[in-house]
Formats: sequence, structure tokens, C-alpha cells
Amino acid sequence: MRSNDSLAPASQDALARLAAVIESRKAGDPDKSYVARLLHKGPDAFLKKIGEEATEVVMAAKDVDHGADKSKLLYEVADLWFHSMVALAHYGLAPADVIAELERREGTSGIEEKALRKALARATEEGSP
Amino acid sequence: MRSNDSLAPASQDALARLAAVIESRKAGDPDKSYVARLLHKGPDAFLKKIGEEATEVVMAAKDVDHGADKSKLLYEVADLWFHSMVALAHYGLAPADVIAELERREGTSGIEEKALRKALARATEEGSP
Amino acid sequence: MRSNDSLAPASQDALARLAAVIESRKAGDPDKSYVARLLHKGPDAFLKKIGEEATEVVMAAKDVDHGADKSKLLYEVADLWFHSMVALAHYGLAPADVIAELERREGTSGIEEKALRKALARATEEGSP
Amino acid sequence: MRSNDSLAPASQDALARLAAVIESRKAGDPDKSYVARLLHKGPDAFLKKIGEEATEVVMAAKDVDHGADKSKLLYEVADLWFHSMVALAHYGLAPADVIAELERREGTSGIEEKALRKALARATEEGSP
Repeated sequence: MRSNDSLAPASQDALARLAAVIESRKAGDPDKSYVARLLHKGPDAFLKKIGEEATEVVMAAKDVDHGADKSKLLYEVADLWFHSMVALAHYGLAPADVIAELERREGTSGIEEKALRKALARATEEGSP
Repeated sequence: MRSNDSLAPASQDALARLAAVIESRKAGDPDKSYVARLLHKGPDAFLKKIGEEATEVVMAAKDVDHGADKSKLLYEVADLWFHSMVALAHYGLAPADVIAELERREGTSGIEEKALRKALARATEEGSP
Repeated sequence: MRSNDSLAPASQDALARLAAVIESRKAGDPDKSYVARLLHKGPDAFLKKIGEEATEVVMAAKDVDHGADKSKLLYEVADLWFHSMVALAHYGLAPADVIAELERREGTSGIEEKALRKALARATEEGSP
Repeated sequence: MRSNDSLAPASQDALARLAAVIESRKAGDPDKSYVARLLHKGPDAFLKKIGEEATEVVMAAKDVDHGADKSKLLYEVADLWFHSMVALAHYGLAPADVIAELERREGTSGIEEKALRKALARATEEGSP
């Protein structure tokens, strides 16, 4: 499922480096590393964080709507992506796989069309009483 | 808040390209483009999707725990990141900003330490009845 | 797991009546009934709605924080509870079971203490690097 | 917005009693009461819990799908409703209001029809590219 080859060598350097750090924590000490602790606890621990961080992104965005600084929102999206990457690591996946999936959609028919087709499919499914 | 300069030129090519596509949809036709439609509807539309996609990531991960193929999980994480990027675009932010924030944490004190301190702070706060 | 006996006969009339309607939809026509459709599609359909409705509760609450009317929040909490009840029905549970669980906590040691102990346990667990 | 009058006197005794306990915690000691602490911290604290508990409901349900005991699911739904009630209390609402809203839907056109119309409206909206 790895598709790093399709990306420029320097591409996603930062995400790849972070993914490597997370990967290395699989063998880390749960008492010394937050990531090692999450991975040690098992899926429910980091999956719960994904739900929690998504909620925090939503709250921060609503605050920006009402005048708050964007930095909190950026912080929460980083947290959401970070915990997504912990989950990816647990399941043997990498950010490069996610990016390749996004590129694949763009490459085949355009992300727009992909998402529109999906919305239409759902609309059709829901809309036929 | 943009920190693209700190990244290699080719870095995050794919995410940057996708972000540019999303950005261009701000002026798009809501009837022809899924992203234009989300952006046109306003924050609640794409923020709701972030909550929804986070839930789908969790469900797909639980299915992998019980033997399902990882491709569905990868698909859902891509959806989550994609809708995060729609939100980022609305608020004038970019994936490069998120990655810079992740790098900043790594650079200053290590992501591990950052997250550990946060967990400790929360623990201390919650644990003093 | 049913604990209706511990409740006054008239208690939770409204929730019990709604639960009975939902229960009856298990044999309903997915093309005519929204609940029958959700139940027919299977868990992922209504579980996704729980994540979505929780997000909508959060967004509506943030809007109230910034001056919006409470009616939208009330509406979203009703949606959240409603979809929770669809899930309960699927798994052979009822609102009365949820209420009995809440009463049990109150009865044994007080909900306060229960939640505090839980928070403390989590704090202890997280706070020992 | 209170509609208790439309309900039998004994109705929702348990939820009303729990709501009263939560209400009383508004003046409670944040160091001694979990609810007082949540209310003292402000909306983001309990709204985050709603997102978190919704995720835990979803995870517990998926586990039941794969053979786990239902008691965990029941516990998580209770947690979700409990934290919803903390939010309701903060915003001057009560479980009776939520139940009245659910009854109102049932009374006017049937919850089925209400939800179906909503799904149809969304389908129409999403399905016209």
C-alpha cells in the first residue's frame, strides 16, 4: 500500500520524519513516551483521541468564526493529524499512503468529481422513500 | 502563520497541490463542485463533516481490529484530512501550516515531551479533588 | 439488563413510547421509514449519525455561547438522544436501561463520586511518566 | 421552553432527579465535585466530553458487533447522556425539554416523517450538481 515511490524524494519530508519518530515509539517505554503509551494501551486509546481532537477542531473553528485567533485552530488540526498518524502507525500505514490516496482520487477523476459522486450516491440512497 | 519557507521546495507537493485545488474552489460553482458547495454553505457544513469523518475513521479502525482490510481505514483517514483541508482553506490556513506546527513541536522539545507535558498537565488538573 | 421494575410505572413514559415506536420499525419498510432505513443499513449507519449529531450539539452550543437561540441546541440534543435510541434498539437495549445505569451510579456512591473516581483513575494512569 | 406540564407527574423522575443534582452543582466546589468542575471550566470542557463520549459509544457498539458484552455500550451511552445533561444544565435546559422536543416531533407529524423529510431535504440539496 506504500506509494512513496510516486512522490518526489523530498516530498512529505516532515510528515515522513514524524511518522518515523512515531514508528520508533512502538518499542518505546510507555512511562517515558506519550506515543509509546498510546500505542501500548491499544487502539481504543488513540481512536478516542481522534474523536476528541476532531471535536476540539470544531470548537476552535467556531471560536474563530466568532473572532478568536486562528492559532488555536491550527494547533488542534495538528493534534488531529498527529493522532491520526499514531493510528496509521499502529495499523502499518503511513502519511504517504494517505497522500497517495488523495492523489489517486485527484489523478483518476478529480477529487471534486469523486466527492460529488459520493454525495450524489448518498443523496440517491437517502432520497428514495 | 505561513511557514512554507522552512520546508524544502518539493516538500508536501501533493498536499500543497491539493490545497491549491481547494483554494481555487472558493470561487467555484456550488452546483458543480463538492468543495465549492461545502465552502459556500459555510463552516457548519464542513465542520460537521470533520466530526462525521472522524467517526468513520474510528469505525473503520475497529473493523480492522476485527479482521477487515486496511484500505477502508486509509480511505477514511484521507477523507478526514481532506475535509480538514477544506476547513483550513476557509480559515486562510494551509497544510504547510499544520506541518510547520508539528515540526515546531518536534524542534523545540520533541513531540513526545510536548504531548507528555500536556497529558501531565491534564492529569494534574483533573487529579486534585 | 432491563431495570424498568425499579422505576415508577409512569416513569419515562415518553421515552418508553418513543423506544416502542423505534422497536416497531425493525420490521418496517426501509423505503417508508427513516428509522427502518437506519436499522436496515446496519450499525455503521446509525453510529455515524451519533458522531455527526454529537458534533452538531457542540456547534449549536458554541453558537449559543456567542448569542444564538437555545432552540437549535435543544433540537440537536434531541437528535443525538434519538439516534442513541436507534442504536440501543438495535442492540436490544432501552432508554430505561440507560436511566437505570445512571440511577445505579447515583444509588451506590453518587454520580459525583463515580465520575471523580474515574477522572482520578485516568489522571493517575496518565500522570505517571 | 419547559414542557414538564405535558408529561405525567411521575414521568422522567429519574432524569429530573439527576438534572436537579447537576443543577445543584453549579454552586458546588470544583475540587470536590466532578460536575462542578466541568461547569466551572466552562463549555469547552463538557462539550469536548460529548465528542469523546460519542466516540466511546461508537467504539463500544463496534465491539458488541464483534461479540463483546453490551454492558460497556450501555455504560458509554449513559456517559453520553450524562454529559449532555451537564451541557443542558449550563444552558438552562433540562432533559424534560429534550423529551418534549421528541414528543413534539412525534405529535405533529411523527418522528418518522420528520426525519424522512429531513433526509429528503438533505438529499435534494446534495443531489443537484
